[in-house]
Amino acid sequence: MINRICNLFNIQFPIIQAGMVWCSGWRLASAVSSAGGLGLIGSGSMPSEILREHIIKCKKSTLKPFGVNLPLIYPEIEEHIKVIIEEGVQIVFTSAGNPKTWTNMLKKKGIKVAHVVSSSQFAEKSEDAGVDAIVAEGFEAGGHNGREETTTLCLIPNVIENTKLPVIAAGGIVSGRSMLAVMALGADAVQIGSRFVASTESSAHINFKKKIISLKEGDTRLSLKKLIPVRLIKNDFYNSVQFAEDKGAGPHELSLLLGKGRSKQGMFLGDISKGELEIGQASSMITDIKPAAEILHEIWDEYIVAKKRLSNMD
Amino acid sequence: MINRICNLFNIQFPIIQAGMVWCSGWRLASAVSSAGGLGLIGSGSMPSEILREHIIKCKKSTLKPFGVNLPLIYPEIEEHIKVIIEEGVQIVFTSAGNPKTWTNMLKKKGIKVAHVVSSSQFAEKSEDAGVDAIVAEGFEAGGHNGREETTTLCLIPNVIENTKLPVIAAGGIVSGRSMLAVMALGADAVQIGSRFVASTESSAHINFKKKIISLKEGDTRLSLKKLIPVRLIKNDFYNSVQFAEDKGAGPHELSLLLGKGRSKQGMFLGDISKGELEIGQASSMITDIKPAAEILHEIWDEYIVAKKRLSNMD
Repeated sequence: MINRICNLFNIQFPIIQAGMVWCSGWRLASAVSSAGGLGLIGSGSMPSEILREHIIKCKKSTLKPFGVNLPLIYPEIEEHIKVIIEEGVQIVFTSAGNPKTWTNMLKKKGIKVAHVVSSSQFAEKSEDAGVDAIVAEGFEAGGHNGREETTTLCLIPNVIENTKLPVIAAGGIVSGRSMLAVMALGADAVQIGSRFVASTESSAHINFKKKIISLKEGDTRLSLKKLIPVRLIKNDFYNSVQFAEDKGAGPHELSLLLGKGRSKQGMFLGDISKGELEIGQASSMITDIKPAAEILHEIWDEYIVAKKRLSNMD
Repeated sequence: MINRICNLFNIQFPIIQAGMVWCSGWRLASAVSSAGGLGLIGSGSMPSEILREHIIKCKKSTLKPFGVNLPLIYPEIEEHIKVIIEEGVQIVFTSAGNPKTWTNMLKKKGIKVAHVVSSSQFAEKSEDAGVDAIVAEGFEAGGHNGREETTTLCLIPNVIENTKLPVIAAGGIVSGRSMLAVMALGADAVQIGSRFVASTESSAHINFKKKIISLKEGDTRLSLKKLIPVRLIKNDFYNSVQFAEDKGAGPHELSLLLGKGRSKQGMFLGDISKGELEIGQASSMITDIKPAAEILHEIWDEYIVAKKRLSNMD
């Protein structure tokens, strides 16, 4: 096997399921890993002891490698890292923070570390910090997003030019064809979020999953730019933010509008009108909810077919 | 020749140089066409008699097919169309307006018509209007832009699913690799703007060309969203717009800020601080100014190499 990411993580397909708040617990991560991809538990919405439970269950339900996504701005980050080490997690994807702070310590424990960035400048910083791989995530991605708004098509070539590390492309990838597009740009692998939210094993509320498969082009928008930019489904909550932003609302006012627990309310509890619903732009291409293994194989099969078609093209 | 766009326009390479205000006169269009691509005169910044001059000079300087880009909201649109017909232009790319209004009439004169859209909904409308091809332009493109902010990676698969017509991908394409990425998505051809602005033959002011080759990732931003969204280089003019928008400025105030002749001031007269400088996000990858024919052949050669590399990849 030549693929650098498959080698690094000892997986069959260069397809990684993004670790996502409220959506990717042990059920989804183990399903993706068992199918030959890399599943990630999203620890950003878990207290440490819940994270431990998910890791233990994931180990029991798959013999294949899996990982944990760790937002470095998480308030109880030290507790999370303690759990990750104690439970023998082998792969950590860090995001939303400085990779210099924890990479060394994790690597000393034998853990493989990838860091999520939205600019080639931060890709360089991550390489300097000693990570093993870069996840480069474009403007079309769901959830929290870069301030520079660089799209995947523009970001990946820049990142590849600025690092020798393997690059995992993220944002806007939902099918074998979009996977082929970023592999054409030179990416070594893909990280896919939205498509796996609409899977049987995702812990997203069924109302949220149904909402996702109903989305059309233009139904998501990058919002809350004066706080931390986040791509949301346009619902009542989004509209109230948009209304406030149009009138010049500052960070304090937006913070009050957001309140606490808004993403749980939407994605986990299923309030699709007043909740915060984070999803990527490519969700407009998702039309059904099915098992994660089927999704993974469908993407891989389409990728192989699309690659042949392209090779044979004049 | 199997490629549908090469067939349609009788060109050698499926590479189209975007018609752009202040940048693409007869020199650039004829250079691209002579090199085997399709050059477009950008009529949006030309009074009708100037457009006639450009068409006449273009016919004299190349025997190959070329076209005219025609923004349908142009105030003297009827005069422009009269000139186009009188001068025997064979190819018209329409944009910024309803394709139903003029397509029929142009087609009756034997003119091939492509229409520029930023959503698959408008791609369908264009097909209904009888156009021969669709240009689908993503969020990363320079100049005026769609309101839905759909990126090229997300837009092209949607458009392809919604039309049987040949699809020309635009936005974020600046190299053979990015060309390969959109061909992988299923596009039939590419339209490239920014890269050709930084060509010897472009009529952009040298200050603007030099500014383009100095740009880094994150140096452009979609702006003036409450008027017509436009992607601009972040300069003093952009900053004053951003400052006003952050405070909740409405369309009237933004209109006053923009004033008249702002794009000419920047792109044609070279005021890179107070002028409006329209360019795409992928400009961060442009590092030199050279002849259009060299640019075209470099992109094509890189495309062929990247296609081989991808085909041989595991």
